[in-house]
Amino acid sequence: MKLLILDTSSKAASAALWEDGVLRGEAYQNTGHTHSATSLPMAEQLLAGCGWSLSEVDGFAVTAGPGSFTGLRIGLASVKGMAFALDKPCVPLSTLEGLAYNLSGWPGLICPVMDARVGQVYTALFRWDGGAMHRLMEDAAIPAEELLTALAAYGEPVTLVGDGALLSAERFAGRLPGLAVAPEHLRNQRAGAMAPLAARLFAEGQTVPAGDLVPRYLRLPQAERELKLKQQKGE
Amino acid sequence: MKLLILDTSSKAASAALWEDGVLRGEAYQNTGHTHSATSLPMAEQLLAGCGWSLSEVDGFAVTAGPGSFTGLRIGLASVKGMAFALDKPCVPLSTLEGLAYNLSGWPGLICPVMDARVGQVYTALFRWDGGAMHRLMEDAAIPAEELLTALAAYGEPVTLVGDGALLSAERFAGRLPGLAVAPEHLRNQRAGAMAPLAARLFAEGQTVPAGDLVPRYLRLPQAERELKLKQQKGE
Repeated sequence: MKLLILDTSSKAASAALWEDGVLRGEAYQNTGHTHSATSLPMAEQLLAGCGWSLSEVDGFAVTAGPGSFTGLRIGLASVKGMAFALDKPCVPLSTLEGLAYNLSGWPGLICPVMDARVGQVYTALFRWDGGAMHRLMEDAAIPAEELLTALAAYGEPVTLVGDGALLSAERFAGRLPGLAVAPEHLRNQRAGAMAPLAARLFAEGQTVPAGDLVPRYLRLPQAERELKLKQQKGE
Repeated sequence: MKLLILDTSSKAASAALWEDGVLRGEAYQNTGHTHSATSLPMAEQLLAGCGWSLSEVDGFAVTAGPGSFTGLRIGLASVKGMAFALDKPCVPLSTLEGLAYNLSGWPGLICPVMDARVGQVYTALFRWDGGAMHRLMEDAAIPAEELLTALAAYGEPVTLVGDGALLSAERFAGRLPGLAVAPEHLRNQRAGAMAPLAARLFAEGQTVPAGDLVPRYLRLPQAERELKLKQQKGE
């Protein structure tokens, strides 16, 4: 089974081709260029380089959130378009669960942390055990200090991963023993790392048709938050 | 400082762009296509995708061995050509040391294992400690059983990485407690993972001019081994 996985949920973007347990190819860029300009050409070049035609792909996976509102929409729209045109199934991935796959098999707690602005982080918590990953905390948008309290309660070594990892590590410094940060090449979302997660969800039949792919923002976009606030104030 | 890193030392091939501690981009393919056809276009597309021109690159790094005799020559020739044309310094990398960087910060022993044919493996041994990697064993071509003896003497958890990791893990099964294999996305050489190693060697001035890049085969190519044998037999 051949899968194409796409991630444009943060500043970095990546695409991967996965075939029956083997990572056939991966493209990754972290240059700040707009994903609308880079993500589809990246996927096209990857397909061409690996000698695949798009019509050979059996299914698509894409990070559905949380993440950058615009970034998520670009990735979802791209995958939606390809899957709709070819009538192929899709798997929406949790960006945070995908991030935890960067550190497959790593000991201790794995804590994905993405910068959610307004003093919050998008986060979750996982543990690898016996080749499988277990979820300890649901995807959430919470203040960083709340995350620190949750992690401290476990009293275990924890590795942070994601674009909020370094900032959180600085903030938690001296208050969380056994704190580590994923190395740079595994810090951000990697379509190649989350490919086994996509393959498992496909095998379990957890697919949706292209039309049913929707973003999982975890909270309202800033414009809607501000509007709500104004409405509450009766402005 | 901007670096281009290239690896074509085994069946997989990859290229990466590194800038002052940040992985700007990586391309990886594991399709069995000949590296002579794929590696330079892959590097070109990566540069274009990241908006870099080749002349911006301050230096080049390439895996010099051990590895596939033909693969190594393709990577070295490509980097030699670019670096010579632009008069930029080069850093030759140990393929095995580069592989160990896939698992930066991972606890326990890191043992890169590449299939060296004729019953042998290319191998070495490393340990991450306090953010730095320490070498415990020099790069060598030895029988797999000899590696097992060496690893058993340490009595520590060990993670195998490289295209010989799965085969060696099967062979060592039940005879080496705490044995693990790197996950698929970190199994083979990754130019993006070894970029910090290249950056450190550049910072230390361990560079050579393009003309001095030479492969490190660790042993003679098969044709030369057979010729020697014939000569010894007086044929």
